[in-house]
Amino acid sequence: MQVSISTISAGATLTGNDLLVVEEPLEIVLCYYRDGAVQRQSLSITMRTPGNDFDLVRGFLLSEGIVQTHQDILTLEYRGKQALQTGASNVVLASLSPDIAVDLKHLQRHFTMNSACGVCGKASLEALEHSGAKAVLGDSFSISESDIIQLPLMASELQLLYRDTGGAHAAAAFDARGHITCLREDIGRHNALDKLTGALAREAADNAYRGVFVSGRASFELLQKTAMAGFPFFAAVGAPSSLAVELARDFEITLVGFLRNHKFNVYNRPDRVAFQPSAGSGNR
Amino acid sequence: MQVSISTISAGATLTGNDLLVVEEPLEIVLCYYRDGAVQRQSLSITMRTPGNDFDLVRGFLLSEGIVQTHQDILTLEYRGKQALQTGASNVVLASLSPDIAVDLKHLQRHFTMNSACGVCGKASLEALEHSGAKAVLGDSFSISESDIIQLPLMASELQLLYRDTGGAHAAAAFDARGHITCLREDIGRHNALDKLTGALAREAADNAYRGVFVSGRASFELLQKTAMAGFPFFAAVGAPSSLAVELARDFEITLVGFLRNHKFNVYNRPDRVAFQPSAGSGNR
Repeated sequence: MQVSISTISAGATLTGNDLLVVEEPLEIVLCYYRDGAVQRQSLSITMRTPGNDFDLVRGFLLSEGIVQTHQDILTLEYRGKQALQTGASNVVLASLSPDIAVDLKHLQRHFTMNSACGVCGKASLEALEHSGAKAVLGDSFSISESDIIQLPLMASELQLLYRDTGGAHAAAAFDARGHITCLREDIGRHNALDKLTGALAREAADNAYRGVFVSGRASFELLQKTAMAGFPFFAAVGAPSSLAVELARDFEITLVGFLRNHKFNVYNRPDRVAFQPSAGSGNR
Repeated sequence: MQVSISTISAGATLTGNDLLVVEEPLEIVLCYYRDGAVQRQSLSITMRTPGNDFDLVRGFLLSEGIVQTHQDILTLEYRGKQALQTGASNVVLASLSPDIAVDLKHLQRHFTMNSACGVCGKASLEALEHSGAKAVLGDSFSISESDIIQLPLMASELQLLYRDTGGAHAAAAFDARGHITCLREDIGRHNALDKLTGALAREAADNAYRGVFVSGRASFELLQKTAMAGFPFFAAVGAPSSLAVELARDFEITLVGFLRNHKFNVYNRPDRVAFQPSAGSGNR
């Protein structure tokens, strides 16, 4: 979206145009079977940047543990008023296979996390285990230090929305050689990651051989989605939180933070970072 | 929270310690009267950095339009397991005055935004008007360009959590001379702003004579809280979203974005930015 603005610097005002990242609500409505009857339930509303909406919903349903595989989702369709040009709207109806048992009590518990043992980081981690997340398998995955250091640059070449607006987060998948295989952008970093995992699920990608790169910080929520999707490696340009580190340790995920200025910190499982002998080291 | 880490740079690994920003869930439970009987309702769970929790809850209840003034909240108390040293826990019970009519249908509608006119940015803005937000009054508020440019530096001196962890957002209130009167930090930017507005409400501050500064981007959610709190001026280091600009226009809030490197963009109501004659301009 383009708007006219004033840019003010050193007492001078320049008028010009600015491209804004679009922010619109998206409602996810679940359609499922219970006792042979079709039920509908509004699941969540998130502020997102329109685009790749079906991947977003797919990734959300997988990372919340509502479905186990993307095949459990029979159809995804827009509902409500649609924009004439794009055919997109702000409501997506996800119809699940009749074989899927949706436990609304579990859902409610999942969203409010109101467990008997109280509300705490530990309970959040336990809720995640109950959602079906397991310690990740990817022990054959490793990536070299120099390839890790290149990730922000490789990603920035694909962050077109950020380049235009300066207001979008990115989440990307990379392989063991540091090649970015998929990148998604959104105003919300959790949405960018849902769009990514939704796209990969559709391609039946094996996440045990991939890592996730994000342009921002490493929060509990992002590590939760990473664990549910089964990635063994998570790298963030920004800082990790306490609970993100605890989650990485519980689920055996390599956690890299502060990946910038040609260096990074490793908060868990540094054994998945491979070192090359430095050039010229044989001469000393 | 301190953890031991590896820092990797140019093929060398250094081991050391790193301070993490603490992330823990906070559940807000509402206690209110209906038909003479006491009702309890779990309202939300947010991931937050412990500290200033009562201000966070106060700010949240005000910005969501659940109460109109902070006096409507009779008591705020921790419930559940408390940490021995701090007396804090992860559940806060907010007891409202018997005079307050809590409309759960309205609440539900507010959180799910499921209006007849569909889910869209416009509906989000309308929902905000229904929550009691009005175009802000602060037409006597203005601040000079040079004072605006100093805000990030002034704030950074108070961002102690960011300095330690690199992982916290800040929200600050400033007066017409660019002095920061209150600053709050949190892992979540919406929490930082709730903590700020909650603290100001407790001090019975008149927000019509203040602006808000945030260390990140300008999203719909942050502008929504700014409108509900009645600030006429919002300045962000990062980019604004499309819906944030629309909201600023609807509610007559001056919106400054990309406030860094000694310049900034103005997206609405530039008349609240005052210019001084440049030094030496009389000589030309």
